[in-house]
Amino acid sequence: MSYQAPVKDMLFNIQHLAGLDALTAQVPAFADYGLDTAGAVLEECAKLTENVIAPLNFEGDKHPSSWKDGVVTTTPGFKEAFRAYAEGGWQGLVHPSEFGGQGAPKTIAAACNEMLQSANMSFALCPLLTDGAVEALLTAGSDEQRRVVIPKLLEGAWTGTMCLTEPQAGSDLALVRTRAEPQSDGTYKIFGTKIFITYGEHDMAENIVHLVLARVAGAPEGVKGISLFLVPKFMVNADGSLGGRNDAHCVSIEHKMGIKASPTAVLQFGDHGGAVGTLIGQENRGLEYMFIMMNAARYGVGIQGIGIADRAYQKAVTYARDRVQSRPVDGSVAGSAAIIHHPDVRRMLMTMRALTEGCRAMASTAAAAFDAAHHHPDADARQQNQAFYDFMVPLVKGYSTEMSLEVTSLGVQVHGGMGFIEETGAAQYYRDAKILTIYEGTTAIQANDLVGRKTTRDGGQLARGIASQIEVTEGELARRDSVAAHAVLKALRASRQDFLAVVDFIAGAAKANPNAAYAGSVPYLMLAGNLVAGWQLARALLAAEDALATDKAFMAAKITTARFYAEHILPRTASLRAAIVDGAHSVTELALDAF
Amino acid sequence: MSYQAPVKDMLFNIQHLAGLDALTAQVPAFADYGLDTAGAVLEECAKLTENVIAPLNFEGDKHPSSWKDGVVTTTPGFKEAFRAYAEGGWQGLVHPSEFGGQGAPKTIAAACNEMLQSANMSFALCPLLTDGAVEALLTAGSDEQRRVVIPKLLEGAWTGTMCLTEPQAGSDLALVRTRAEPQSDGTYKIFGTKIFITYGEHDMAENIVHLVLARVAGAPEGVKGISLFLVPKFMVNADGSLGGRNDAHCVSIEHKMGIKASPTAVLQFGDHGGAVGTLIGQENRGLEYMFIMMNAARYGVGIQGIGIADRAYQKAVTYARDRVQSRPVDGSVAGSAAIIHHPDVRRMLMTMRALTEGCRAMASTAAAAFDAAHHHPDADARQQNQAFYDFMVPLVKGYSTEMSLEVTSLGVQVHGGMGFIEETGAAQYYRDAKILTIYEGTTAIQANDLVGRKTTRDGGQLARGIASQIEVTEGELARRDSVAAHAVLKALRASRQDFLAVVDFIAGAAKANPNAAYAGSVPYLMLAGNLVAGWQLARALLAAEDALATDKAFMAAKITTARFYAEHILPRTASLRAAIVDGAHSVTELALDAF
Repeated sequence: MSYQAPVKDMLFNIQHLAGLDALTAQVPAFADYGLDTAGAVLEECAKLTENVIAPLNFEGDKHPSSWKDGVVTTTPGFKEAFRAYAEGGWQGLVHPSEFGGQGAPKTIAAACNEMLQSANMSFALCPLLTDGAVEALLTAGSDEQRRVVIPKLLEGAWTGTMCLTEPQAGSDLALVRTRAEPQSDGTYKIFGTKIFITYGEHDMAENIVHLVLARVAGAPEGVKGISLFLVPKFMVNADGSLGGRNDAHCVSIEHKMGIKASPTAVLQFGDHGGAVGTLIGQENRGLEYMFIMMNAARYGVGIQGIGIADRAYQKAVTYARDRVQSRPVDGSVAGSAAIIHHPDVRRMLMTMRALTEGCRAMASTAAAAFDAAHHHPDADARQQNQAFYDFMVPLVKGYSTEMSLEVTSLGVQVHGGMGFIEETGAAQYYRDAKILTIYEGTTAIQANDLVGRKTTRDGGQLARGIASQIEVTEGELARRDSVAAHAVLKALRASRQDFLAVVDFIAGAAKANPNAAYAGSVPYLMLAGNLVAGWQLARALLAAEDALATDKAFMAAKITTARFYAEHILPRTASLRAAIVDGAHSVTELALDAF
Repeated sequence: MSYQAPVKDMLFNIQHLAGLDALTAQVPAFADYGLDTAGAVLEECAKLTENVIAPLNFEGDKHPSSWKDGVVTTTPGFKEAFRAYAEGGWQGLVHPSEFGGQGAPKTIAAACNEMLQSANMSFALCPLLTDGAVEALLTAGSDEQRRVVIPKLLEGAWTGTMCLTEPQAGSDLALVRTRAEPQSDGTYKIFGTKIFITYGEHDMAENIVHLVLARVAGAPEGVKGISLFLVPKFMVNADGSLGGRNDAHCVSIEHKMGIKASPTAVLQFGDHGGAVGTLIGQENRGLEYMFIMMNAARYGVGIQGIGIADRAYQKAVTYARDRVQSRPVDGSVAGSAAIIHHPDVRRMLMTMRALTEGCRAMASTAAAAFDAAHHHPDADARQQNQAFYDFMVPLVKGYSTEMSLEVTSLGVQVHGGMGFIEETGAAQYYRDAKILTIYEGTTAIQANDLVGRKTTRDGGQLARGIASQIEVTEGELARRDSVAAHAVLKALRASRQDFLAVVDFIAGAAKANPNAAYAGSVPYLMLAGNLVAGWQLARALLAAEDALATDKAFMAAKITTARFYAEHILPRTASLRAAIVDGAHSVTELALDAF
């Protein structure tokens, strides 16, 4: 089997870090989603992803989606796999039951999503984008739009896209030029070119609904004049049946370094008279709605990072057990041994493992905060959880994806020369992962969000509150008598202090010297992500020590992994702190013509 | 122009860090290679690489070498470019004049090699391997082998290969199984399969000489029973003319993630009666000779890392100047600006620049030590320089190539979504670079060399000697009154102390607890490489301050780059020290079946 879903680790997080029991006790709508149900859902998802979807991953790289005369044909097998996915009800897992969904907590759905991403990131992008479209329609769609479109999306008959980017407008949506012209029947005609549209055209569903950012004539300049439109590939009748072809056409797909099975479309709207669209919500509030999709998608992309990291880790472990090369340095084996016996191979595998488990733990905790923020009966609890979740989104997206570059690179490295040969499969993860730090907002965009909206806007108050929570965990570690707990305590305390120093620096510099604050933005994101992931593994260590008797091998491994993370990964915060606090000047000092 | 050779920076290093003037004054054979000559040679090399070889790089990725019926056809244009390279005398640049070479110091040749690697890494591998073959023949070849073969290699009529790897013998050459059977005429018949043979077959030269590791019947087990053989593709008559086809055939080439234009051959020796080879040097000393090739090649692979990093940097700078997106955070531009105005883009470009210049400075200093080690009139000076060079080789190879992964990744990142599209060209560098940390010995193999032969064998004496030299530079920095010098001093001192702590730890642990010493091997290599590169940039800062009046813009940029390196890169040593000294236990603690 090429992929084994880490169900046990996911359930451990859901139980001990996300605290599913407390959530289900507090939220009546989740009453049916206790740990037993979570276990059953995860096992079912594991079967589908391991057996049906994972085997198509390498195929997708060898036989990418192809374009001919406006039609995109996906990798053989994708269509059938998407049918199986939809029929299993997975597209509706996290969405409301009134539209045909399962209404499951994100705490559970995020774990299922990780499996899907591990199994096949190119494939999984289609459901990920559809989830975003559903979120946007739930928030801002008209009753009609919701009633007609959402059930089709949840049953996998249709899929959704996000059409933001244009050739001149990538990260900078103020530059969007696509036009929307109001028609007498209340619809709009859309004209423009959108690029980088994931699954903008494909053959896996009978219709595609494009969520398109465009400007209505006379709208304000910049991002305040952007509206969001629903533009279907095929027109939709009132009863949901399909009408004629809309004027939205895929003119080409991109030739990419990775995620080759996922068609990245150039879409032309309105070249033949205008694409018919309907407004979502109100005019000029498009960016606000798009951010709803984007925040869901950003968290989802973070999960992609964790998913691909785990897949790369599993492959590397398998190779390291099999490949025999050289004698161990400690003389424990007389002849050549499997390379997993060599300390540096162990260091690489442990680094891959610790980063993956750390980010998974962080994402699981963030998902629980999302659920509480949306469903907790107490308004204060909702507000606090929302603030925590908002802080987590750039970390889950930014840190988990950056770490996936490191993990997939180590994955190739463990394979040695074989890793560079495409037939081995390790190289695909390295190529695929590189998109993750770019789309749905580059790491720098996430870091701007972290510095601006999440840190300096409240003068660092929320950030310091998180540090206080970490201090509580330190207190618990201090009361343990294990060597591991004290090793973790030492590293966690030092990293928390690094974090606080940086928060003070960034909050202090934000107004007087914004260049200095933003020069340290990505290092700050990496520091904060590292710390929060390490903190969650510290909490995991506490839980594992308590539960040692229940499953000794698993809990002991968790303790070792947490300790490895604390000793090898957490100390990176010291370097980042130094760079941020001492190094802002030299970032922007070089004369422009000296580059 | 897609590549501009950094001639000025190279000459700065050659003058101020490598000290070419002192070398030419001391070594009569180098008397003609003063700074003026160096400048002329570099300018000439720049023309060839920029105009002829660089334009073929992207072509090579699009139209890789292909195999059909045992024949390998290289990318269109490669053959002519190789002719131009050979006719310019570049293959002989560093080799002795008695065989038709130019006898130039490595200090100059290394800079030329960097240009070649920047221009086209896939192309440049062919000359790189030929250099290795020349080195081995110079050291251990018979008079006949040297007389007949070396001139052909230097004029580019023939090329050379290194045939080490077999399917079961990658890093572990003890497992080599290829056999050599002595014949009555003094030759040997060779039987076996070699894989991963760079330019093992191609159409750029009239003959190929394979340097092949094989075992003679009855030889000792393991690496002490390996001999080195010269096996030509076409048999060679005494006058150097070509005879019939030898029984060495390319049965396939690999499908790789990068360096696609460079054919990576599977060679079958002796399937049709035996490939005829002649012994190089003495039986059973093959590994020793191969290490001569390998040490030359390892340094060369380090240069590849620097070369590809510079190319990625140049491309990213060009894009960052052109691409307009978003307002600068400091409000310096009212509307959207070129992204080079954004602090995080600057941070990425400065990181790329500082890593590249730091590694270039380190490599230049190492080359000077090589030249002095081989040619200095004083035996003590030769010995000291050899020891220094030996310490540098794993750093130049290991650190420069690992940093090239970071730099090429940042290069894609600067391009945003466009970076992931193959037509842009940034992705190619990311894919190409990944081989560098693997071939000619993985980073772990370099680190084993650093820990074993270079550090623990003399109890850390050589390493501490290098730290003392760094302390001398710190003393000079302390006597300056610039802010930059003091910023560099602070970081350099801290990193040197980190280095010393780690040397003590590793030298101390080596015997009692080899797993602990080797668990920190790669982090130690990264720490040492980081420190030495930062040290050389500190020396560069001192020289630039002294020479500020001669070329203000260049020298000011050098000072800023050195300071950036010190503030942003050097502090990483703190994290590495912590991981090595505190973290050895958790590297190997996890039970094997828990992975």
